[in-house]
Amino acid sequence: MKKVVVLGSTGSVGRNALDVARRLPDEIQVVGLAARSNWEVLREQILEFRPSVAALVDPGACQNLRKTLPNGATRLVEGLDGILDDVLEQEADVVLAAITGAAGLPTTLKAVEKGRRLAIANKESLVMAGKRVMALAREKNAEVVPVDSEHSAIFQSMRGSRSSEVTRLLLTGSGGPFRETPANELQGVTREQALNHPTWKMGPKITIDSATLMNKALEVIEARWLFDVPPERIEVVIHPESVVHSMVEFQDGSVIAQLGLPDMRVPIQFALTYPERRPLEIDRLSFPEISRLTFEEPDRGRFPALDLAYRALETGGTLPAVLNAANEQAVERFLAGTIRFPQIASLTRQVMDHHDAIGEPEIPQILEADRWAREEVDRCLS
Amino acid sequence: MKKVVVLGSTGSVGRNALDVARRLPDEIQVVGLAARSNWEVLREQILEFRPSVAALVDPGACQNLRKTLPNGATRLVEGLDGILDDVLEQEADVVLAAITGAAGLPTTLKAVEKGRRLAIANKESLVMAGKRVMALAREKNAEVVPVDSEHSAIFQSMRGSRSSEVTRLLLTGSGGPFRETPANELQGVTREQALNHPTWKMGPKITIDSATLMNKALEVIEARWLFDVPPERIEVVIHPESVVHSMVEFQDGSVIAQLGLPDMRVPIQFALTYPERRPLEIDRLSFPEISRLTFEEPDRGRFPALDLAYRALETGGTLPAVLNAANEQAVERFLAGTIRFPQIASLTRQVMDHHDAIGEPEIPQILEADRWAREEVDRCLS
Repeated sequence: MKKVVVLGSTGSVGRNALDVARRLPDEIQVVGLAARSNWEVLREQILEFRPSVAALVDPGACQNLRKTLPNGATRLVEGLDGILDDVLEQEADVVLAAITGAAGLPTTLKAVEKGRRLAIANKESLVMAGKRVMALAREKNAEVVPVDSEHSAIFQSMRGSRSSEVTRLLLTGSGGPFRETPANELQGVTREQALNHPTWKMGPKITIDSATLMNKALEVIEARWLFDVPPERIEVVIHPESVVHSMVEFQDGSVIAQLGLPDMRVPIQFALTYPERRPLEIDRLSFPEISRLTFEEPDRGRFPALDLAYRALETGGTLPAVLNAANEQAVERFLAGTIRFPQIASLTRQVMDHHDAIGEPEIPQILEADRWAREEVDRCLS
Repeated sequence: MKKVVVLGSTGSVGRNALDVARRLPDEIQVVGLAARSNWEVLREQILEFRPSVAALVDPGACQNLRKTLPNGATRLVEGLDGILDDVLEQEADVVLAAITGAAGLPTTLKAVEKGRRLAIANKESLVMAGKRVMALAREKNAEVVPVDSEHSAIFQSMRGSRSSEVTRLLLTGSGGPFRETPANELQGVTREQALNHPTWKMGPKITIDSATLMNKALEVIEARWLFDVPPERIEVVIHPESVVHSMVEFQDGSVIAQLGLPDMRVPIQFALTYPERRPLEIDRLSFPEISRLTFEEPDRGRFPALDLAYRALETGGTLPAVLNAANEQAVERFLAGTIRFPQIASLTRQVMDHHDAIGEPEIPQILEADRWAREEVDRCLS
């Protein structure tokens, strides 16, 4: 029986994680839940899974939940402090870090600090502070198991091998809804078009990131730290069918790949039950039915996000955090309808241009760079 | 440093194995060589690798070699007994069993009996006596590592996993040169057309087997014993590009695949250096260049070999040995120009129909069934 804490339980990864837990009642015990503000969904989750403690970051939402939650075994706590001081202080085997955005960093650090297995879906904490997080994980003997389908694929493909035998990580990406959209039409694409991802159903932020290829760009940075592979050995391959979730090339020319239907529960379950694979009732791949898998180079002209990621890794220090924060802010602006699609990348680049990166930063400096970058997006727009 | 014996050193797998050894002089020491009759090539190999002992099965060839071999450190022995009593009695870490055909069985058994790692390219010994070979390997604690690209792919894809987690083995095959040839034209295909394999360069017997899909059929039987997976969980997928060398599906729906350019040195080297992967200078896969990978169901009407394999596994006992021997004999007839292409499978089926299978046979009974099947092919033809 694994005791699991789910941070970000009301989001898309969190709900899928609880579905995994629901189907493996003899193996997974949910001992803690945390969400930002969706108290109605969290209420149902508390009633179903009866964790010892649950947290809501938003005080108003927490008050609403407190009013309607029957007296029971679950302690309700409030704010980020509630997560850090109560939810993460509990005894647990695995912390699923599925909070979206930069807010995931303090909780990720705390989980690793406690020596828990970190099942990481919050890519931002690795993008912002991957070097620190992984160094702390080594120091505290905390396993870090990826939940992202691409990194899970790499993790699975590297099983039984040494990282010194790896020559390339091949990160696949669907190419998003605008893979074939001519450059001059990207200016006019709508929020709705951008939210219409061809293969995966995900939250809005990550779906927009898939459309700009920023998602893949962030994954390059994430992979660099998760697998300790230098950036020049990480390549992005566009694979519209999203069947091959990623691949690893070894020094004998062999490539190991992980494939599957697009269902987040597969990597989530693997991160929770690893090193074992438990059954999961989902449709099986039929290769004759799939019939063909295609691959192409990413178009770095139309999708400048990838180059920004390699540049951020090359410069290092606080620049990846700035990339991430500027993009997050720009995506919010795009979703709000105040900027056009290509501006997401161009604003991010502009903010990166304006930044004086600090090498080997401490966490407060990273958080400061994050804050600065968000404000800089607004300054660039005003 | 691994001490390696190469049985079948002058054949296609054997030569590739020696190329691997040549490129890893600090890790692989060739201590024994054996071939059937090609004394000219064996002579060069002896002069290059200086094994302690070398064997030629054919007495005349052995005499020729003895005349021209300078006095040196390599002892030359003759016949199958020479292999069994001298070559395999030496201290060695790995025996590469790359003898073609049913002649490989006694040497395979001896290698396993001695507790050596068996790097097995001789699929016939697993087809004929897989249950016995694997039981003996477990008893003697002998590792059995496949050399066939398909089984090596499965072996690599299963690393770090338990076989109880496997739900399907997906054996890929190019479909051979007649994948798209209409049924009524198969009657007229020539020896030369059949020897023209689209992706792999191999010996003549295995190339014909690829054209009839008997190679894939034998691989199904081989996989059944190597990985202890029941036949109904082994599927064949036609994949003309021969990039995906095979795949394993697990109970969570995940599929792990091994991919690479068609170069036998990759699985050979892996079988020799396992659990490590050493560098190999070969071209790397470029997925954008490959551009697409296709998959289809095998046509069991035009290629009846697959059904014969599943039938042989279902009946068990001596029937797989009969399948193998009848096919071997029929292929010889086809190569000699005395039967037509579709007769290879129909003769094999006919011989299987005539056979009273013995369940749980001892090795002599298997060898007797093998002998009987070869004669039965001739009887069917006369």
